[in-house]
Amino acid sequence: METLNVFKIGGNIIEDEDSLTLFVKNFARIKGKKILIHGGGKTATSVSKQLNLSPKIIDGRRITDEKSLEVVLMVYAGLANKTVVAKLQANNCNALGLSGADGNLIQANKRSNSNIDYGFVGDFSPSDVNIELLQTFIENDLTPVFCAITHDKKGQLFNTNADTIAANIAISCSSYYQVKLMYCFEMQGVLRDVNNKDSIIKKITKKEYQDLKEQKIIVDGMIPKIDNCFYALENRVESVSINNAISFMDTEGTLLTL
Amino acid sequence: METLNVFKIGGNIIEDEDSLTLFVKNFARIKGKKILIHGGGKTATSVSKQLNLSPKIIDGRRITDEKSLEVVLMVYAGLANKTVVAKLQANNCNALGLSGADGNLIQANKRSNSNIDYGFVGDFSPSDVNIELLQTFIENDLTPVFCAITHDKKGQLFNTNADTIAANIAISCSSYYQVKLMYCFEMQGVLRDVNNKDSIIKKITKKEYQDLKEQKIIVDGMIPKIDNCFYALENRVESVSINNAISFMDTEGTLLTL
Repeated sequence: METLNVFKIGGNIIEDEDSLTLFVKNFARIKGKKILIHGGGKTATSVSKQLNLSPKIIDGRRITDEKSLEVVLMVYAGLANKTVVAKLQANNCNALGLSGADGNLIQANKRSNSNIDYGFVGDFSPSDVNIELLQTFIENDLTPVFCAITHDKKGQLFNTNADTIAANIAISCSSYYQVKLMYCFEMQGVLRDVNNKDSIIKKITKKEYQDLKEQKIIVDGMIPKIDNCFYALENRVESVSINNAISFMDTEGTLLTL
Repeated sequence: METLNVFKIGGNIIEDEDSLTLFVKNFARIKGKKILIHGGGKTATSVSKQLNLSPKIIDGRRITDEKSLEVVLMVYAGLANKTVVAKLQANNCNALGLSGADGNLIQANKRSNSNIDYGFVGDFSPSDVNIELLQTFIENDLTPVFCAITHDKKGQLFNTNADTIAANIAISCSSYYQVKLMYCFEMQGVLRDVNNKDSIIKKITKKEYQDLKEQKIIVDGMIPKIDNCFYALENRVESVSINNAISFMDTEGTLLTL
């Protein structure tokens, strides 16, 4: 099977003009088939503030009411997505900006398995990805660029975690491609000591992950991210790593293995 | 050649929840191949105001500075485009939201043929449409839904008049399809008397158009719209009409003929 690179970049990269420019240059240079998924969290927060909306965040998760959803649609699907697409196009990467509503690519359900009402937040599984259409795009040499928006095919749009979208798309594509999933962010990888940028953990097995969590070395937002990594590995994704958004071509970051 | 319906809806329809819902239902019911282009002007103005930006409009044209472009990207490509796409999907129309940057579908140049600096406003001609990719989408039973954003393939996005996008796309598609172009808005057609909603002019030839302009019956924003209509007719578009966004299946509106 042919290789497919699935990249996810976080909001910090999207929002920093220089970082984004460097990421885009390197991403455009990757040969072969590829998909990009992006977040865009902080701009949504700052636009919300400018619009005098107070964003609610519980357990690091944004509560998405109707007004927050409008902001997320504006920032993720509009500003962030088209900025990334235009920059990729300038680097001769034939990017196609997408939300999960477009071409019914990701059909989600409103989150209900929780005590908290997250509002307009959607969850989905790899089988909810319209893989036939996604494959049509990829085989036409397009590079799909997903923002973190899904829908229910009943007219409701949802805010959806970008890490989870990346994992589910990677899993779905594993039926047709040898998928390499890379989570890119501002650090060089998973750090043993958050105050030491050189303390990169080169490799984490599932057993080591449990130990690192128990020792409180891996905490907070890194936990759902690494959970997504192992979820992908356990579902036929060939390789998963966490790496730096600028130096990923020269550095190895953190490799996750079962 | 197969028929392709190219529809353009204005900002007033997009922004009125009930009108949009009715339009979308009727548009989804149109059999065969179709494309939708939408504006979204007033929401951009109101979001600009909420963000304490003062939109500049000269001769009915928005001057697009960097901050205005961000708002237009948020509102047109994000909020408006995804809202329309999700509603179409709910009506079993396989909509694919697009800007001109996506798949390099519309490559424009910054407007320079004017005494006014319009800012980040792009102009293009029918040959700048990536018709091969657009055709690939259409032949895969997707319904492209364009917002009024283009790019220069050097990383710059542009605000672009939605009526002009509709005309240029209609012309470009005329190499492969028998194109019917319909401009839909809140009126029943072109009116002889703006104060009388029933004074619809059923048919306007190019000669009659000149007379109606001289008599000041056709004025203001209707002039560039009708100019686009005749431009399309003079460039192989099969039929062009101006009609109501809700009743277009039952009413004839105004038919333009050479």
